[in-house]
Amino acid sequence: MSDIKIKTDNTLECSVAIINNANFSLESGEKIKNLKIAFKTFGKLNSKKTNAILVCHALTGDQYVTGHNPITGKDGWWSRMVGPNKPIDTNKFFVICSNVIGGCAGSTGPKEINEENKSIYGGDFPSVTIKDMVKAQSILIDGLNITKLFSVVGGSMGAMQALQWSIDFPEKISNIIHIAGALKHSAQNIAFHEVGRQAIMSDPVWKKGRYFNYNERPERGLSVARMIAHITYLSEDAMHRKFGRKLQSRDIISFGFDADFQVESYLRYQGKSFVDRFDANSYLYLTRAMDYFDYDEKFKRKIEFSQNPNNHIKYLIVSFSSDWLFPTQESKIIVNDLNNLSRKVSFLEIETDKGHDSFLLDEPQLDNLINGFLLSNFEEINE
Amino acid sequence: MSDIKIKTDNTLECSVAIINNANFSLESGEKIKNLKIAFKTFGKLNSKKTNAILVCHALTGDQYVTGHNPITGKDGWWSRMVGPNKPIDTNKFFVICSNVIGGCAGSTGPKEINEENKSIYGGDFPSVTIKDMVKAQSILIDGLNITKLFSVVGGSMGAMQALQWSIDFPEKISNIIHIAGALKHSAQNIAFHEVGRQAIMSDPVWKKGRYFNYNERPERGLSVARMIAHITYLSEDAMHRKFGRKLQSRDIISFGFDADFQVESYLRYQGKSFVDRFDANSYLYLTRAMDYFDYDEKFKRKIEFSQNPNNHIKYLIVSFSSDWLFPTQESKIIVNDLNNLSRKVSFLEIETDKGHDSFLLDEPQLDNLINGFLLSNFEEINE
Repeated sequence: MSDIKIKTDNTLECSVAIINNANFSLESGEKIKNLKIAFKTFGKLNSKKTNAILVCHALTGDQYVTGHNPITGKDGWWSRMVGPNKPIDTNKFFVICSNVIGGCAGSTGPKEINEENKSIYGGDFPSVTIKDMVKAQSILIDGLNITKLFSVVGGSMGAMQALQWSIDFPEKISNIIHIAGALKHSAQNIAFHEVGRQAIMSDPVWKKGRYFNYNERPERGLSVARMIAHITYLSEDAMHRKFGRKLQSRDIISFGFDADFQVESYLRYQGKSFVDRFDANSYLYLTRAMDYFDYDEKFKRKIEFSQNPNNHIKYLIVSFSSDWLFPTQESKIIVNDLNNLSRKVSFLEIETDKGHDSFLLDEPQLDNLINGFLLSNFEEINE
Repeated sequence: MSDIKIKTDNTLECSVAIINNANFSLESGEKIKNLKIAFKTFGKLNSKKTNAILVCHALTGDQYVTGHNPITGKDGWWSRMVGPNKPIDTNKFFVICSNVIGGCAGSTGPKEINEENKSIYGGDFPSVTIKDMVKAQSILIDGLNITKLFSVVGGSMGAMQALQWSIDFPEKISNIIHIAGALKHSAQNIAFHEVGRQAIMSDPVWKKGRYFNYNERPERGLSVARMIAHITYLSEDAMHRKFGRKLQSRDIISFGFDADFQVESYLRYQGKSFVDRFDANSYLYLTRAMDYFDYDEKFKRKIEFSQNPNNHIKYLIVSFSSDWLFPTQESKIIVNDLNNLSRKVSFLEIETDKGHDSFLLDEPQLDNLINGFLLSNFEEINE
């Protein structure tokens, strides 16, 4: 177990775990000195320490899964799902959510100080992977003296982390809830990420990631990257329903390049508001981590050899019918692999037109599913 | 009929029609003095002038439909389709292809001189629409002393022009071949275009479209715009088949931001090579023209009132099963409207995994379809 010191950060309104005793080794072979992991907890750990749930955030998420987010001034990104009497009920469960390594909400990432040379990492931050994120979370969980998590829950990049937990630390978890994920990032997904990265890196303000030295931020590039990504998070149907070809604040087209259509002003707003809360370099590193994720050929073998067959993890795999970024087919491949290994797996494709972002939106079926899965399994282990 | 003068441009290896006598009025109400339309012809007009086919190019196309393109130094964009003994056989047909108004291959567009004040238009170029493009083509056809075109053929933005011909000049055409198009640009399509435009307009070199004055070009923004668009032209399956997660020139991931995956270097190449042949302002204006295209509610009514019911245009409507930019469903709406009006319409969805770009690629079924449609209809009118 690593020597870990936990502090309170009053500005960030969260805790920060600092791993003191050694350099944290990354999958790339690089090392990070005094790794910081910013995290928040909600609810109370029970005396047997059997009610801990780790929620893993997606690409642009953070530790503020519920309650107040001091960076945005708004509610946490999954306030709908997590809280007292919510589907993930903090009256019953102890919920932990940490900012991933490479992130920009207090964990060690490109906008933090490199403890080796006391300068901001920027573009010199080492490459991180989903495996690295999970390794850091595992050290945090150890530091909280929790031997076994009841559940690891996540959507999108969070689902990748949940899956990685089941591969790397099967003895430390009882179940995972894997939402809108896949065994790999597809060529099309890599392509969309790559265009977003090119938008950032071709912004002259980016300066090979050293913009902090010039007190600037590549806001234009990051905004374009966010706009691209945002299109992929919605379905064509949701976009049509939401915007269609409706005009923005006018009755007739302007014959110009102002935002004529509502979908245009919506995207511009998404881009602009994103740059206030997210670091461009973190966006580069975390999209890269997702691109590198690949258990397409290896998953079945990894699970077969990593898990004690007498002590199965339970899997809940959820997909959304209109998600074209992580289509249902990708979830079915996971379900199929698990079934072939006779693992305990539940699977549901939720019918919705809201696209990939469905897991963050009002989807009562998802709420009920997660709540039911957690409660029934919790009763079972506490019988 | 307008007074039109035709010159040869030796550098551009094409003809240029100059409309002299009046200002050309645009749909926006703006006017263009001495409108230039760059065009090429292939094959010979027969004595009865019944064998003329107008090919309309897509967003980034030009008049070099076949043969040598002096701008790229390569073959024309549809050399596969148009030429002697090709599906659109120039031994039999007289093929005309003109650069659209707003384009950048010799027709009046943002990179040309405004004859009113002798300075480059740049961002002061007026907004153009598909209707304006077709109006200019119609004047060109008049200038070539052709009363009636045998066919108007186009894919994507070219299909929009073909449809516009059938609405605005039904008496001047015998049939249209409408490939991978729609009655309107969808919210998602507008969204992708808007992100491309934002990438260009947020490039500091763009300077509100006045970059020519500074002898610069917003290459980074245009390159990102092209990369975004390119993803939408391919299908997920085609991308997977072509690239999957194959690495570029290495065996293992680099843990960095070089092009690790083949799909990344492919996109970077697409972006970089595009800026050598296309003007960023033209890209803004032409994507806008596509966004503005909208006959969703109006098409049936327009066709009903514009066409003499005794003199039907024949329609060939073609879609591709994997085209997610202009999905088959959009073509079916057109076919349905035409059927409801008892018009002569043939429709085929071609099964292919090549996506929207299929019409530019090797699709023997498309070749046979176009060839057969043209020949059988040509025999009919010449009986």
